[in-house]
Amino acid sequence: MIKIAIVGYGNLGKAVEAHLKNYPDLQCIGIFSRRDNLKTQIYPSFHYDELLNGEHDIDVCILCGSSDQDLMSQTQELSQYYNCIDSFDIHRLIPEHLDNVDKTSKRAKKTSIISVGWDPGLFSWQRLLFETITPIGTSETFWGKGVSQGHSNAILNVEGVKKAVQYTIPNTETLKKVQAGLSYDKEEKHERHCYVVADEKDHDRIKQDIITMPHYFAGTKTLVYFVSEEELKRNHHGKPHGGIVTRYGQTGDFNQTMSFNLDLEDNPSFTATVLIVCARAAFKMNKSKRFGAFTIFDLSLTDLSDKPRSTLIKDLL
Amino acid sequence: MIKIAIVGYGNLGKAVEAHLKNYPDLQCIGIFSRRDNLKTQIYPSFHYDELLNGEHDIDVCILCGSSDQDLMSQTQELSQYYNCIDSFDIHRLIPEHLDNVDKTSKRAKKTSIISVGWDPGLFSWQRLLFETITPIGTSETFWGKGVSQGHSNAILNVEGVKKAVQYTIPNTETLKKVQAGLSYDKEEKHERHCYVVADEKDHDRIKQDIITMPHYFAGTKTLVYFVSEEELKRNHHGKPHGGIVTRYGQTGDFNQTMSFNLDLEDNPSFTATVLIVCARAAFKMNKSKRFGAFTIFDLSLTDLSDKPRSTLIKDLL
Ligand SMILES: NC(=O)c1ccc[n+]([C@@H]2O[C@H](COP(=O)([O-])OP(=O)(O)OC[C@H]3O[C@@H](n4cnc5c(N)ncnc54)[C@H](OP(=O)(O)O)[C@@H]3O)[C@@H](O)[C@H]2O)c1
Ligand SMILES: NC(=O)c1ccc[n+]([C@@H]2O[C@H](COP(=O)([O-])OP(=O)(O)OC[C@H]3O[C@@H](n4cnc5c(N)ncnc54)[C@H](OP(=O)(O)O)[C@@H]3O)[C@@H](O)[C@H]2O)c1
Repeated sequence: MIKIAIVGYGNLGKAVEAHLKNYPDLQCIGIFSRRDNLKTQIYPSFHYDELLNGEHDIDVCILCGSSDQDLMSQTQELSQYYNCIDSFDIHRLIPEHLDNVDKTSKRAKKTSIISVGWDPGLFSWQRLLFETITPIGTSETFWGKGVSQGHSNAILNVEGVKKAVQYTIPNTETLKKVQAGLSYDKEEKHERHCYVVADEKDHDRIKQDIITMPHYFAGTKTLVYFVSEEELKRNHHGKPHGGIVTRYGQTGDFNQTMSFNLDLEDNPSFTATVLIVCARAAFKMNKSKRFGAFTIFDLSLTDLSDKPRSTLIKDLL
Repeated sequence: MIKIAIVGYGNLGKAVEAHLKNYPDLQCIGIFSRRDNLKTQIYPSFHYDELLNGEHDIDVCILCGSSDQDLMSQTQELSQYYNCIDSFDIHRLIPEHLDNVDKTSKRAKKTSIISVGWDPGLFSWQRLLFETITPIGTSETFWGKGVSQGHSNAILNVEGVKKAVQYTIPNTETLKKVQAGLSYDKEEKHERHCYVVADEKDHDRIKQDIITMPHYFAGTKTLVYFVSEEELKRNHHGKPHGGIVTRYGQTGDFNQTMSFNLDLEDNPSFTATVLIVCARAAFKMNKSKRFGAFTIFDLSLTDLSDKPRSTLIKDLL
């Protein structure tokens, strides 16, 4: 059994807690939070500082803190003692973060895998796979259907809006153009669907304010639906996400289109599954003395799977 | 430059020859065939037996022989001297073939990667990735649009048929059911579209004979189109293929659907691209002393790519 510590108890931490039981070779020993006396669902909670005194027997820490606030310091700190996994997603800082964690991990003979999840993560993996196979071609990534917090907040700033949820949705016309090798407008990759709660007398003006809002909606296909507060609560409280990575590759005169689609009903619980299987990979890589900080580009599927290689080859190749 | 030998000059060998120039770190030194004085398109041809005397300076042999006739013996033979790639696709014999090539490769301190292409190959990779991430769920593979030689030949056996091409096509209704977690009939995964050349007086009877043919068409949605010989030649001479690997995964109450689609205008030239990038991987793995026989499950993307790891992380993670 691989002994797992969950570090941080937000959306992602809760999702890792909820789903770890589906991976029979992994065992959760507890949740470590900076908050005291945290009420958790399944596993016991401990204070984050207990991770620093080496009292707990832990094989891998799954760090579920925020990329903005926590991960750059926490992963570096904990990789002095443990194999670590994180989902750090601030693209321009990834090389620096990787470098920091690589140094601490190597010194401690530990193995960390950073920036895993689906984007960065599986999407990056597919992008690189597609471009490597067909060096000539065009790649695109479309996101959604997913809630965009930034755009939802922008709508909330419109006078008279009480509540709002904005979904980013791939524009299927543009997707078809990419996959057919036709020219397309980068500005037209996504549609924006807005669900808004407001008094009826304001609807027309609010709609105009939204669809003409510079930077956020102007120039983009934007649909505005007014709903009641009850309907918003009932139908738009979820955290769906996903998207499509596609490549229109060319081999001579032939077109070869590859695509990878994710349609996620719940973003944190899917991201959690990727973190969980990477925890297994870090453990296995550490056992075979591959020390340092790695990314999803460095992993093989035999690292990620719990099944013996011969079984994988027999059953799935 | 990595020096490549193409072994065997059929559809796949010709496709590797045609597309190698798109991979600037690879250089073709020639085509090796069992046939004498072969007329090739770009690179010089040599006799297969010259591979056995060690006269040529070769880093990796890309074996393009037939799985039925050639690969079990040829890959084993050549892996005594060279790093080798093949696309061996007889599923039940893969473990035995892997074992044989592993022994010769290890003895020679060489690196081979067997059974690469898209199925086996990329499809196997995605299947394993999807199942590893979400252990609870349902996976399916749909093939097509692609020509099935076996089914085309079955139609040719019907009295009065002069020429025939049969395409296997994913049944989109069944695909939607899989992706929505609904029950579905395995027999209804594919549709069969038949393009047939025959005298008009026989059309009705031939159509009946086809759609009721046991094992091949009976019980499956089958469409029969009669076309002229000219139209068959003009519109149905290609080698399209592809398909969809999909998984309806579950994390608790949430459904998470993953899918990978290939839409290939030409099967041999796409398969060739996968063999080519695996040749690069075998070379790199050999340089870092990873000797033996491997499969696509053992590779990382940093093995497959020609770009430095730091560039990949900066640009694509
Ligand atoms: N790569 C990908 O595909 C992907 C996808 C989704 C998310 N992510 C990454 O995952 C990170 C975490 O996402 P998240 O949604 O789990 O963030 P979150 O809910 O804001 O949680 C982040 C941290 O904040 C603290 N926290 C949570 N709830 C709190 C509360 N009520 N009061 C005080 N502190 C609280 C927790 O630490 P303590 O328990 O220590 O207080 C928690 O670890 C994101 O920053 C993003 O970078 C990546
Ligand atoms: N994994 C995948 O996704 C995938 C996809 C497609 C194909 N494949 C595999 O690739 C293998 C090769 O496919 P292919 O379409 O290239 O087969 P092919 O055209 O039949 O060629 C196989 C071999 O037959 C010989 N040959 C070809 N044309 C000949 C001719 N006119 N006269 C005499 N000999 C000839 C060549 O060897 P010499 O030059 O030595 O005579 C050649 O290497 C298949 O068996 C299949 O297993 C795998």
